[in-house]
Amino acid sequence: MVDLKQVRFLLIGAGNVGRRFLGLVARKEQVLRERAGLQLVLSGVADSSGIAANPEGLDLEWILALKAGGRGVAEIPDWGQPGVAALDMVRGVPVDLLVDASPANMLDGQPGLGCIELAISQGTDVVTANKAPLALAFSRLDELARAHGARLRFDATVAGGLPAVNLGRRDLAVADVHRIEGILNLTTNYILTRMAAEGLGFDEALSKAQQEGHAEADPSLDLEGWDAANKLIILAHSVLRYPASLDDVEVEGIGGVTPQALREAAANGQQIKPLAVAEREDQGYRLWVRPVALDAAHPLASLGPQQMGIVYHTDISGVITAAIVEDTPQPTASAVLRDVVELYGRAAGGTP
Amino acid sequence: MVDLKQVRFLLIGAGNVGRRFLGLVARKEQVLRERAGLQLVLSGVADSSGIAANPEGLDLEWILALKAGGRGVAEIPDWGQPGVAALDMVRGVPVDLLVDASPANMLDGQPGLGCIELAISQGTDVVTANKAPLALAFSRLDELARAHGARLRFDATVAGGLPAVNLGRRDLAVADVHRIEGILNLTTNYILTRMAAEGLGFDEALSKAQQEGHAEADPSLDLEGWDAANKLIILAHSVLRYPASLDDVEVEGIGGVTPQALREAAANGQQIKPLAVAEREDQGYRLWVRPVALDAAHPLASLGPQQMGIVYHTDISGVITAAIVEDTPQPTASAVLRDVVELYGRAAGGTP
Repeated sequence: MVDLKQVRFLLIGAGNVGRRFLGLVARKEQVLRERAGLQLVLSGVADSSGIAANPEGLDLEWILALKAGGRGVAEIPDWGQPGVAALDMVRGVPVDLLVDASPANMLDGQPGLGCIELAISQGTDVVTANKAPLALAFSRLDELARAHGARLRFDATVAGGLPAVNLGRRDLAVADVHRIEGILNLTTNYILTRMAAEGLGFDEALSKAQQEGHAEADPSLDLEGWDAANKLIILAHSVLRYPASLDDVEVEGIGGVTPQALREAAANGQQIKPLAVAEREDQGYRLWVRPVALDAAHPLASLGPQQMGIVYHTDISGVITAAIVEDTPQPTASAVLRDVVELYGRAAGGTP
Repeated sequence: MVDLKQVRFLLIGAGNVGRRFLGLVARKEQVLRERAGLQLVLSGVADSSGIAANPEGLDLEWILALKAGGRGVAEIPDWGQPGVAALDMVRGVPVDLLVDASPANMLDGQPGLGCIELAISQGTDVVTANKAPLALAFSRLDELARAHGARLRFDATVAGGLPAVNLGRRDLAVADVHRIEGILNLTTNYILTRMAAEGLGFDEALSKAQQEGHAEADPSLDLEGWDAANKLIILAHSVLRYPASLDDVEVEGIGGVTPQALREAAANGQQIKPLAVAEREDQGYRLWVRPVALDAAHPLASLGPQQMGIVYHTDISGVITAAIVEDTPQPTASAVLRDVVELYGRAAGGTP
């Protein structure tokens, strides 16, 4: 393979998505070389235990085995540094790319936000799967990136492995999108869909979601609609060029949806789905998240419990719908890798 | 707008897609400047009447008005050249880009194929909406483009305005796609869907399709499945990296689908759809096109008469479905513009 490009990166967050991303980097090493001309080198990783850093590259299998054993990266011999903060790693280890897979902290976006700001201000590209920093500070991060010539990619932040952001910001770049409808949160769609299909009560459906890893221990952000609202904000900035903030989103959770309401909807040939919508208004867009009864013909009405989807209503590209079946966080991790390949790889498929 | 990039292009074919593309270039002039930093200059256009060429740029409105009046571009004062071949225009007018919107000629791919080969061999990029040259000679054109440092884009050749090719070759660049299912031909889906929904006979549905511009005067390539087969070949090369030819596709048209068969399928909760499939086999992929009864739960079963869609089954990105409602060829023209923006424009949305 001619001219192999080496990309050194830091990873913050070694949980569901971060670990799977490292797993994909290992599993796809040859494909990355052959199809994209890329060699990805992990120069540092941070989790709650501290960091492990080696500019020359850490052993991915070592880290994956360690995390599989429930231990922290700070325990890695030679390179582990217990208690050191991710921010210090970003400051101290020069790389091409920062990958943020840290937990979404809606209070202040930390530690992701600080790490992303520092990386960008150092001219380092960023690929993030973490919604919070973007939902809280998209415009500031965008301007910072332009000012420092860094690139920020975030396809993994909306609808998991579905290239919802890419489709909107790239394939619809010169189209005018007057309406976006999305089922952007898996947990709430899973719960409502199983309640409707199996007549389960809310609590029962929730516990099943938690058992199967489709809901977190504290699912309040999902259930109350704020996770979907975050994603809507990211779409508003990146696809609609509409600089909205969370305060601009009318948010209603799914807590009020009763089995009876689901039965009545079904009797009318409808499905109640957790919808996130951006619709053109005179001055901009109206943004809202709430459960809505969709007619059977609606492209999102038939989405199953493990699906997310989006509909773009455009002026010149028709109405485009995209949906994904995502039964683990792996597709989300693959969206992080997709962004990395877009930033550094040779164009894949067809000609250069 | 800082650093506006001027792109000079030639257009061959001023029919449904070509005219709409020129219309979009005119209509989106400001958006192209502001969002993509692009100024597109039409240096030459060819249709059955001959060519019109002016390296400094032809007046789009002039050409659109002329074509709307049923006249040929060779009639354009000063710049029109009756009887001159598209190939001579490509040879004689130096530009950055050739846009091929000429009719798909499945016999020998001409005139598109010759123009694309010549353009590429001159180092000129090509964006094509014309399936035939790719279906007949993908590998040769791909190698020629690599050899001459030219770029070839063809998102508009599969499923109209749906970014089916982009999604596969770019967003799934490092994924392993083991199965593709598509409703890639609008005419046959329109006919079968209306036959099923309204109990129409085949001839009646076909004539309605022709009245509404969803079927050509000679629809045989569509009805017999060859249009879908062409698109499958393009997906095989660009997404699956599987260099198949039309001879490798098992093709069955929709002529044998009776109203009774559609009724029986409906009675079983199924929809008969014109499917194009690539499925992994030990040595590569098996490719086939034929009408198939899909269960209601299949993501393509509910597609309406004016829709096309595709399903990618992948190893790391889950199962991704995309569909488009396309009631005119405009979305297809927008896919041509999408490719032009991808080749020359600044990255749109979010940061650079």
